[in-house]
Amino acid sequence: MTAKLYCMGESGNAYKAALTMTLAGFDWEPVYVDFFNGAARTPEFLAINPMGEVPVLVDGDRTLTQSGVIQYHAAEKTGRFQGETAADRAEVLRWILWDNHKMSSQNGPLRFMMNFLPAEKRPAEAIAWLGGRARAAWKTLDQHLQERDWIVGNAPTIADFACCGYLYYPEPFGFARADWPNIDRWLDGIAALPGWKHPYDMMPGHPSDRA
Amino acid sequence: MTAKLYCMGESGNAYKAALTMTLAGFDWEPVYVDFFNGAARTPEFLAINPMGEVPVLVDGDRTLTQSGVIQYHAAEKTGRFQGETAADRAEVLRWILWDNHKMSSQNGPLRFMMNFLPAEKRPAEAIAWLGGRARAAWKTLDQHLQERDWIVGNAPTIADFACCGYLYYPEPFGFARADWPNIDRWLDGIAALPGWKHPYDMMPGHPSDRA
Repeated sequence: MTAKLYCMGESGNAYKAALTMTLAGFDWEPVYVDFFNGAARTPEFLAINPMGEVPVLVDGDRTLTQSGVIQYHAAEKTGRFQGETAADRAEVLRWILWDNHKMSSQNGPLRFMMNFLPAEKRPAEAIAWLGGRARAAWKTLDQHLQERDWIVGNAPTIADFACCGYLYYPEPFGFARADWPNIDRWLDGIAALPGWKHPYDMMPGHPSDRA
Repeated sequence: MTAKLYCMGESGNAYKAALTMTLAGFDWEPVYVDFFNGAARTPEFLAINPMGEVPVLVDGDRTLTQSGVIQYHAAEKTGRFQGETAADRAEVLRWILWDNHKMSSQNGPLRFMMNFLPAEKRPAEAIAWLGGRARAAWKTLDQHLQERDWIVGNAPTIADFACCGYLYYPEPFGFARADWPNIDRWLDGIAALPGWKHPYDMMPGHPSDRA
């Protein structure tokens, strides 16, 4: 049975799950959550995920939340993108945790505040502070990719699909590919994988829907 | 051979690793990193962890970074605190990722800015913004613990030892146990486990060292 991913195109966290499932050949389809009109705060949605967040994957009788959990689920079910050795798999977990701690947790709120909040509600100092932390993360990733094509080992893994979650979006949040040549090359490498799509082509929901 | 944890008492992320190893009976000893005097930025330390962060575990020929990776390492080596079933283990990963994404990644910087930065350098608006996000996380955790003793299943797991990382510290960062009765009870439950110690009793380094 086709698994259902509750998601919207604007969510880089949902994109990590959608991208992993697509590239791994895991059977899924999107269920649009109209997050910006409060759909993640309805009783129906909170019954699926009390945290009121996307992504959520419903696969048969299992309901999975947190993008990394869904990534691991798809990787284990398909036997793909987990890393080749035990040491590789520990590295994959390390970078997924790093992404959750230092990378997407900065990029997501930064992009949200700078683009999806009304201009008069954007907290300039919080944006500046978070921007500094995001830049430190981009530097860490760029340095790590200096002599590598992939974050772990010699092949793409779910660590790559986690860390790239917010980096293909066009909305400005201080990240420019031209500033980070190794990240830029690595993003091209991911985009060249068979089946890759841009987040707005992979999931329903686009900022222009609210224009 | 005794594993070495590069750490300092002030770090809640290091505490997650130290607490897990201690409660699991994993043989370790601390190596003090004088973080506040720049010891994590020396060439010697950056050779161990290019990210310039604690905790780092050196266990034989393996060097592990990210608290969650060290937690999993100790849990797998000792066969403890991983969760009892496959579904439990997916839940453990979910809450460890949630902690990294929503909980410790807010609590840590918030406590740092409110206590360890000089008063004139504390960014009030960034603190207010991050405080709001931290409160949302405390609410999520408190609600989850309403009818449970442990975050996953019926026994303590590394998910508990991740989420509690910053919650025993005395420095004020907006978290008060009295406001969150379920968290309060759960913290008492963790503190009652054999071998538990407060972070400042488990690792070298205390704010009074710099007084």
